[in-house]
Amino acid sequence: MAVYTEVSFEDLERFLQNYDIGAPLTFKGIAEGVENSNYYLQTDRGAFILTLYEKRVNPGDLPFYLGLMQHLARAGIVCPQPVPARDGALSGTLNRRPCAIVTFLNGLSVRRPTPAHCAAAGAALARLHLAGGGFALTRANALGPGGWETLGTACRPHADGVEPGLAALIAGALADITAAWPRLPQGVIHADLFPDNVLFMKEEVSGLIDFYFACNDMFAYDLAIMLNSWCFETDGSYNITKGQALAGAYQTVRPLSTDEIAAMPVLMQGASLRFLLTRLFDWVNHDPQALVSPKDPREYARKLRFHRKVKHAREYGI
Amino acid sequence: MAVYTEVSFEDLERFLQNYDIGAPLTFKGIAEGVENSNYYLQTDRGAFILTLYEKRVNPGDLPFYLGLMQHLARAGIVCPQPVPARDGALSGTLNRRPCAIVTFLNGLSVRRPTPAHCAAAGAALARLHLAGGGFALTRANALGPGGWETLGTACRPHADGVEPGLAALIAGALADITAAWPRLPQGVIHADLFPDNVLFMKEEVSGLIDFYFACNDMFAYDLAIMLNSWCFETDGSYNITKGQALAGAYQTVRPLSTDEIAAMPVLMQGASLRFLLTRLFDWVNHDPQALVSPKDPREYARKLRFHRKVKHAREYGI
Repeated sequence: MAVYTEVSFEDLERFLQNYDIGAPLTFKGIAEGVENSNYYLQTDRGAFILTLYEKRVNPGDLPFYLGLMQHLARAGIVCPQPVPARDGALSGTLNRRPCAIVTFLNGLSVRRPTPAHCAAAGAALARLHLAGGGFALTRANALGPGGWETLGTACRPHADGVEPGLAALIAGALADITAAWPRLPQGVIHADLFPDNVLFMKEEVSGLIDFYFACNDMFAYDLAIMLNSWCFETDGSYNITKGQALAGAYQTVRPLSTDEIAAMPVLMQGASLRFLLTRLFDWVNHDPQALVSPKDPREYARKLRFHRKVKHAREYGI
Repeated sequence: MAVYTEVSFEDLERFLQNYDIGAPLTFKGIAEGVENSNYYLQTDRGAFILTLYEKRVNPGDLPFYLGLMQHLARAGIVCPQPVPARDGALSGTLNRRPCAIVTFLNGLSVRRPTPAHCAAAGAALARLHLAGGGFALTRANALGPGGWETLGTACRPHADGVEPGLAALIAGALADITAAWPRLPQGVIHADLFPDNVLFMKEEVSGLIDFYFACNDMFAYDLAIMLNSWCFETDGSYNITKGQALAGAYQTVRPLSTDEIAAMPVLMQGASLRFLLTRLFDWVNHDPQALVSPKDPREYARKLRFHRKVKHAREYGI
């Protein structure tokens, strides 16, 4: 957790001349996410986050991300709201980085979600899927099956050095998953709704954050990403009670079709392969001077192995 | 800037059971300081900083630091206030680190202080010196001349690799400074009142922070640390207008004696040597896996060379 690009008070003061959000009272770099530099900014008019987008975010995608947050808020989803500059622009440039100011949301993310947290977050995902309807912009999922191919090829020579047998696991899973990859109802998905990205007040969801992987893809795939990141225990076991809570609450808002349910085993494999591959890529390409420790790819290798034995969505509590 | 020890919401919730400060609304790691892990915590009763003390802070010194902040606040200095736990303790343990909760102060630190900022901060230093009177605990300055000797010996073999001639500069300065090191009025000093550690609202000081180098030493040495860190321009030149503003405002609150004024050249050398040596030590012992880039020691080598040519405090604007 780190801040990559420093912003001085003087830089901030100059930048805020473009905005009508009051005088700054507090300005602190915060250790949030691993991709961008984030600052907490409090003014006499409210609390905000200033984000400087680092190399992983394509500036061409900012209208999609920021426009989506506006669209979702208008449809009743609590998420950060981009604050327009005086000239109406939703993003600007600061210290040579594209940047944006968004509203700050109160709430806390949980590290070890309870079934009640899982249920509340599952329902929030379904509401997000419905609320995305009618959003005019689209963004392809760069981390779908096509992207896995590329990452898999890049990582293959190093995979067995990370864990013996990993190269074969990836090659086998990649072939099976891409052959069986379904076509199911699509729309805007969050694509990264890990526990870090859901804010709670007590057991109620108070906001959803970090839309910088959002894209157009299958809704049920987004649910599979959530089941992977919310329902496994630290010992590697799948907690079916949490799975039932999460998927059950999702379905109270947006019921899954029989096709979507039937596809859950392959979607769960795909979701775990996606995080296995990006983590493996970051692991083997880790710059020792980087500010962030890469996440262990083996967590998702273990999940993938689990999913490769699953025959029916019932085993996930669906 | 980084957070070294992660604290989950669950860790926080358990820890807050020991405190009577309300329910948490926001909890974020903040990139502040280079020594400890800091979290911004907002509850329904106020805003706080939770600090986990990392290896550089000796837990045995916490009663001095935390007691000093209480003492100073009672004497009218705006600084973070330790929040006692239900059992009255000012510090506790969280994730195997000593820790404390202190009140959060609004305000912004400046990177390029103006003469007006220098004056406001200089007066604040003098008020701090007076307010420290009567504080019962004491702490020796581990980074005084005795500590420089040790650091100098440890760094000597690597110094010329950082900058040719640096080993001779250090050896010469160390000999001259320790021979001429004065005895002057002493008390509690901040010992690290860099621009990062002074918060402003407009051009008024709104608070002083980071007391984790505070100790008993000469007041005029504390002023020399400030002149070194506030009055040099980025091109290496000493800005005498800023020096006059800072030292002049200091003297409106606590006038310097003729002995203190006469000693300024050697105190300025000592202050620059202290930061040169600690930065050099961190530079040559830098762990490439560390989350923080070490600061460039050469900035303080340049300042030290400047001071070694100064004959009279007038050259600093005093």
